[in-house]
Amino acid sequence: MRIELEIKIPVASLEGLESSLSILGAKLLSDEEQVDVYFQHPCRDLAFTDEALRVRRVNGAVWLTYKGPKIGTAYKVRREEEVMVSSFESIISLLQLLGFREVAVLKKRRMVYEVERLRVYLDHVEGLGSFVEVEALTTEDQERTMLEAKLRELAERLNLPLEKATTKSYLELYLEKGGVG
Amino acid sequence: MRIELEIKIPVASLEGLESSLSILGAKLLSDEEQVDVYFQHPCRDLAFTDEALRVRRVNGAVWLTYKGPKIGTAYKVRREEEVMVSSFESIISLLQLLGFREVAVLKKRRMVYEVERLRVYLDHVEGLGSFVEVEALTTEDQERTMLEAKLRELAERLNLPLEKATTKSYLELYLEKGGVG
Repeated sequence: MRIELEIKIPVASLEGLESSLSILGAKLLSDEEQVDVYFQHPCRDLAFTDEALRVRRVNGAVWLTYKGPKIGTAYKVRREEEVMVSSFESIISLLQLLGFREVAVLKKRRMVYEVERLRVYLDHVEGLGSFVEVEALTTEDQERTMLEAKLRELAERLNLPLEKATTKSYLELYLEKGGVG
Repeated sequence: MRIELEIKIPVASLEGLESSLSILGAKLLSDEEQVDVYFQHPCRDLAFTDEALRVRRVNGAVWLTYKGPKIGTAYKVRREEEVMVSSFESIISLLQLLGFREVAVLKKRRMVYEVERLRVYLDHVEGLGSFVEVEALTTEDQERTMLEAKLRELAERLNLPLEKATTKSYLELYLEKGGVG
């Protein structure tokens, strides 16, 4: 079972973080322009069932992703199915013709760093601001405590305001703000 | 507006047709193993609304296709949206997780020929038998009569039993047979 540990922290600005990360030996893996389109189901309230259907365009590539409800509460573990698709416009039209409705369009710039066994995402989300996500993946339950410690340690070395950490997704934050794009 | 003219004729066997086609100068464009999976919508009866959602695997490639209701009655014109997807298994799981249900799996071998401006499909559909489809595409309404004449002429030269022609799709024929796979 894949366990995803993550902290997401809103920050005033991403400035300075790139150089702090390079001092810590972090490697830039990618620099992405992402557009995420979230859909509502024609006859099932995906917010209520804790599911999500998303079309994501990352630079040139397009992905269609289903996320199932969180399993358990301690970890953020979900059933996920994903395929790459050949056209952003066509998959959106196809979903709309089947009765799926766009509920949110989120545009972000994401820089992805790797440092030791952690991933760091520097995200700027249009209309929501800047965020840093630190993430660790493991399949071993006994590694959890060690990785959680590493995660917090890195957040502290980057001077991130840990007390502001949120467990909400960008979609939830967007909808809370009343869907201002 | 794209107009599709077609005749579909059940035949006892496809034997002999390949050589007849090559005598007429037909060119073999492709030889395909197709698997078509048709889905029912979670809250809309696609048979009633005259729509279809299909995942097709052709040799290695996978397509997700939505077909809208026929527009008008004289021609077989439909709204169609199609994307190529990266995985047959994942797109099927993804659709099932969204509540779509498989209603039919049709396996066929299709040989595609081109002769003058016509396409000829030699289809062998598992459980349904063999069929020849002759098809012409045009965007010009005034070409319709000419192309229809060409289509019938070719069918006659191939000794196809025109009186058995059917306007039904393989999905309709499959469901009429009670979904025997």
